[in-house]
Amino acid sequence: MMDRSRLEAFSDGVFAVAITLLALNLAVPGPGHGPLLHQLGHQWPVYVAYLVSFFVIGVLWVNHHSLFGQVARVDRGLLFANLCLLLFVVAIPFITSTLADYLLAGGQDARTAAILYALVMEGMGLTFTVMFAYVVRAGLLHTPLTPEASRAAVLRFGFGTGAYLVAVGAAFVSAPLVLVVAGGITAYYIFERVPTSASPIEESGGDTLG
Amino acid sequence: MMDRSRLEAFSDGVFAVAITLLALNLAVPGPGHGPLLHQLGHQWPVYVAYLVSFFVIGVLWVNHHSLFGQVARVDRGLLFANLCLLLFVVAIPFITSTLADYLLAGGQDARTAAILYALVMEGMGLTFTVMFAYVVRAGLLHTPLTPEASRAAVLRFGFGTGAYLVAVGAAFVSAPLVLVVAGGITAYYIFERVPTSASPIEESGGDTLG
Amino acid sequence: MMDRSRLEAFSDGVFAVAITLLALNLAVPGPGHGPLLHQLGHQWPVYVAYLVSFFVIGVLWVNHHSLFGQVARVDRGLLFANLCLLLFVVAIPFITSTLADYLLAGGQDARTAAILYALVMEGMGLTFTVMFAYVVRAGLLHTPLTPEASRAAVLRFGFGTGAYLVAVGAAFVSAPLVLVVAGGITAYYIFERVPTSASPIEESGGDTLG
Amino acid sequence: MMDRSRLEAFSDGVFAVAITLLALNLAVPGPGHGPLLHQLGHQWPVYVAYLVSFFVIGVLWVNHHSLFGQVARVDRGLLFANLCLLLFVVAIPFITSTLADYLLAGGQDARTAAILYALVMEGMGLTFTVMFAYVVRAGLLHTPLTPEASRAAVLRFGFGTGAYLVAVGAAFVSAPLVLVVAGGITAYYIFERVPTSASPIEESGGDTLG
Repeated sequence: MMDRSRLEAFSDGVFAVAITLLALNLAVPGPGHGPLLHQLGHQWPVYVAYLVSFFVIGVLWVNHHSLFGQVARVDRGLLFANLCLLLFVVAIPFITSTLADYLLAGGQDARTAAILYALVMEGMGLTFTVMFAYVVRAGLLHTPLTPEASRAAVLRFGFGTGAYLVAVGAAFVSAPLVLVVAGGITAYYIFERVPTSASPIEESGGDTLG
Repeated sequence: MMDRSRLEAFSDGVFAVAITLLALNLAVPGPGHGPLLHQLGHQWPVYVAYLVSFFVIGVLWVNHHSLFGQVARVDRGLLFANLCLLLFVVAIPFITSTLADYLLAGGQDARTAAILYALVMEGMGLTFTVMFAYVVRAGLLHTPLTPEASRAAVLRFGFGTGAYLVAVGAAFVSAPLVLVVAGGITAYYIFERVPTSASPIEESGGDTLG
Repeated sequence: MMDRSRLEAFSDGVFAVAITLLALNLAVPGPGHGPLLHQLGHQWPVYVAYLVSFFVIGVLWVNHHSLFGQVARVDRGLLFANLCLLLFVVAIPFITSTLADYLLAGGQDARTAAILYALVMEGMGLTFTVMFAYVVRAGLLHTPLTPEASRAAVLRFGFGTGAYLVAVGAAFVSAPLVLVVAGGITAYYIFERVPTSASPIEESGGDTLG
Repeated sequence: MMDRSRLEAFSDGVFAVAITLLALNLAVPGPGHGPLLHQLGHQWPVYVAYLVSFFVIGVLWVNHHSLFGQVARVDRGLLFANLCLLLFVVAIPFITSTLADYLLAGGQDARTAAILYALVMEGMGLTFTVMFAYVVRAGLLHTPLTPEASRAAVLRFGFGTGAYLVAVGAAFVSAPLVLVVAGGITAYYIFERVPTSASPIEESGGDTLG
């Protein structure tokens, strides 16, 4: 049986690099571009976008952690599903800096940047859901899910995937709204408790799956 | 016996950083360079090159994973063979951004960028094949390969090494063709099943080797 | 029980990337900007800021290492407390390069850069203290702390949190003073021994906690 | 007893990021700066410096691997000795790109860049030697070294430390000579076998230490 530790190590490396590269965008123009306080204040969209994207990646990492904590076997399909997920993760620093650059521009450019941001989030959420479904179908879990756990998990990930679609819609209305929606989805994943879960996370890391 | 976990951890780190740095090239010129939609549309070669190189590194990582899953011992020769492989991996973000920059330029520059891209791919494929041969010759596998498994593995890696030579040839004809060939080789490694394999990957990670 | 190894692997990845990105700021302007020796000499604030921030991250990593060496269980709260800590760690290359750029400018800009630096340090110290308190309260340690160990640990982290407040104050007086204070706090954590500790670090990694 | 796995994971992360960042320097100026072939040919010092520094970091990683394979316990002193080593590792992309930029400039600037390069190498070699001596003195090895093994190890690391001093001297004579000397030292560590070693690396990873 192929062990899952290298998949986790590689994914953790990608998560860690992507989350750290986010901060490269914090840099101010530097000396000769007006008072530093003004430069810092001027780029508040950069900080907001940084915060939201940081926790988006962080929450995804927590969910990844929870999912793979339940996985008993890794097959070739799962390796490639995971690669597809990472394809979106790796693009997050790019869409974040683009959104921050255009957030206040208004008009079509701000809308374009916001839609791009929401679409990558939607792609990420969708890939994660597909990967979860694949894991369940292919019987790769330590313990098969009970029907209730399965329903709860479908609801939970369905929520995320649907909510990112809302973010795509929000992008057409207002660019900053995308960050509000993405931040809200992230906060939901931080604070939610699935009450029907029989296996609290403290025992088994199970709340993600049921 | 030297354990292989640090070799894997270091390699995974390099793979993870290289695959994430690929995305640095996605950045658009930014405000003041025309409509964002136009900027994004204008750099479609960047996205194609990003996609191909992402899966090239991803597939190499999967194959690396499979190979080392079979390795029982790591000796000094294998450490340095692996370093040589990483030398090419680390250069992939560079050749990818160069190819993307010159893909549409046409003429000698596009050809130069495409040949550079194909040569690094060929170097990567060749080094992996040499490393595999070294592992077999030096008796570093958990279980020596059966003659058929050995033949299948030789065929499999020989295919890759030969196909990247085709990519070098393609580069002389047309720069975009290099990405088609590299993408095709990658797709082959994603979908292929070596039918003579006695040990399906789900059981032992063995399909890479036989 | 959720294992702590992936939390450590992910955190180590973030620490490693952040500490390495610090060095990107060492780059000189390059040919055409006067004698190299002059360029190197001119940016001595860059080296000092690099040194201080390198050891700030290094010491934090050591303390992180010690804390998690005592942790028996990881729950969802701890995962997010750790994410908040990493939010500050990831910002360190940014505040370091900003401080280095403005250190010698004097006036309001130098003060702004120094306050920003000190505030992120304070945020980092505070988050670590909160995370430690959370671990103790939530009963996540292998062995509950004795009252003396608990007192010593509170003193120890209280020192850091308080000292970074001193750094914030120092920033209002003089920008270079911030680096002196941050360097001093770091040196304290390198050399201090908590004498009441019953479990020397050589045995159990315990001196951080008591 | 504090386990050494996180020290290795963190160090591997730093080695991996530093070795991958080396390649950022390979980038050509891009379209609008003359024929690509000319741009590539023009920056041959970049490739040579990249190759040498890549294997310098790679060999250091192998030696680090070998050393810690023998370490039974990690104490606070060793953690900080290791941090000091990483301080030099992290600076290697910087000194490499500086040397590449000035290699052909000749005169004082080339000499400055070469001396900087050699000094960081010397610092790295010296720190590794001090760390090795610390490990032996503090009794942190699994198996104490025999007197012969100890002598061989002293000779071996003494060679490196001395040879990098030669590199410092070479820098005063000619900048390219520094790369020749550093490349030669690296090749020595790749190919050398310490004949008195009782424990060949294939068995125990021991040849680094004796």
